[in-house]
Amino acid sequence: MPGLSKKQETLIRSLSGRHGRRGSDLCLCEGLRCCSEALLLRPDLVELLVLREDFEGILPQLDAETVRLPAQHFNSLCETITSQGVFALLKKPEPPAPESPMQDSFAFVLDCVSDPGNFGTILRTARAAGLKEVWYAKGSTDPYAEKTIRSASSSQFALGLRRYESLAELAVQLRTLGVERFFRTTPSGGRPLYGEAQLFDHSAIIMGGEAFGAGTMESAIDVSIPMPGGAESLNVAQASTIILFEHVRRNQKL
Amino acid sequence: MPGLSKKQETLIRSLSGRHGRRGSDLCLCEGLRCCSEALLLRPDLVELLVLREDFEGILPQLDAETVRLPAQHFNSLCETITSQGVFALLKKPEPPAPESPMQDSFAFVLDCVSDPGNFGTILRTARAAGLKEVWYAKGSTDPYAEKTIRSASSSQFALGLRRYESLAELAVQLRTLGVERFFRTTPSGGRPLYGEAQLFDHSAIIMGGEAFGAGTMESAIDVSIPMPGGAESLNVAQASTIILFEHVRRNQKL
Repeated sequence: MPGLSKKQETLIRSLSGRHGRRGSDLCLCEGLRCCSEALLLRPDLVELLVLREDFEGILPQLDAETVRLPAQHFNSLCETITSQGVFALLKKPEPPAPESPMQDSFAFVLDCVSDPGNFGTILRTARAAGLKEVWYAKGSTDPYAEKTIRSASSSQFALGLRRYESLAELAVQLRTLGVERFFRTTPSGGRPLYGEAQLFDHSAIIMGGEAFGAGTMESAIDVSIPMPGGAESLNVAQASTIILFEHVRRNQKL
Repeated sequence: MPGLSKKQETLIRSLSGRHGRRGSDLCLCEGLRCCSEALLLRPDLVELLVLREDFEGILPQLDAETVRLPAQHFNSLCETITSQGVFALLKKPEPPAPESPMQDSFAFVLDCVSDPGNFGTILRTARAAGLKEVWYAKGSTDPYAEKTIRSASSSQFALGLRRYESLAELAVQLRTLGVERFFRTTPSGGRPLYGEAQLFDHSAIIMGGEAFGAGTMESAIDVSIPMPGGAESLNVAQASTIILFEHVRRNQKL
């Protein structure tokens, strides 16, 4: 089995930095669990699989090019110490075409969610909740950064991610696709979430980022998650989870 | 304003390590937000406040000893680069007495939740959901480690944390206090969460850790969160959030 070409080595190193990643249509996925999931979901996107010489984990069968590297060389390419001896280089999935119909009964929108751990956790939870797409505006973190992929357990490869230059532009697109009402989450002062009968019906729900919350939007309805404990706010990943599983709950046949 | 005594310096450094923390009744709290919250909630527990010389943030008024340190010295004592120039040394809150009555309508139990970020996020969410106590068994992470306090935004100081040597011992105590049914969360195969009418009624709900899930327990009822998206599992912090806010939802007057 041959080693890495010089070109591959340079490519992998550049993808660890923000600049290299932004200009590229490739991304890195580290660790046994994340790689297994990505390989199962989108084997067609895998460009290269890199194993440490002592790697003995079990991965889905794959046609892609595979290289094995001495431990020291492998570790110098990895961001985490928990890579478990495997990482993969994948093409980023194609985003859905802007004019393509929505795949869910509502649009779940992230505005300025800048923490990769939060963004990734939200993607993982959205997938578990059965969503097919997540919408986001510029100002959010890169969904294909290694850390985001790790937090999402590779759910990036199961979801359509729709990115827009601004919340305003995103709203225009959603209206075109039939969205009739916009709900904007706020930590307090909005209408209580649980009483909103039309929350998931031809609607968009906008989650705000860690620092400043969701951007303002004309004619949006502010909704809040009741917090009897009087804490200041919930982490955006926790707030997203509550809303996504309120949707699941309403669709259960009890 | 004097600097740190040699004894204080040694103490602070030892609290950053697991061993020093375990043997101590003190803990460290870093950053403006966490310190503000801790100072507001439990001013009586604050032993010492340490500021970087350029610190200009606003903190609640406090009687405790305060020292200002040159930046280099201050930074050498801090775990994170985001400490924002302030940390506090606090006594850990006294846990509720084992025989003291439960403060909530159900006991929320963490079994082997070993990731400080998850444990802290769960505490923060439990507080927002209005719980007064969280129960946990040995094998979970230290609730008073710096990272756990940071993830919890200091909710440790608003909650009673009840620790037991094992899940079995914890269950015996809960039965003594009137708990009649135990629910054990599993990623799949349990009874659907949303259909359990008595989920929060003289009950205990046991959340399992990241690696192996909740320990087995005789006569416990397995419950699962429905996941229409077919993902393998949810992060334990997300699963906890769903359950805690299902409780909030059921208590809402709509």
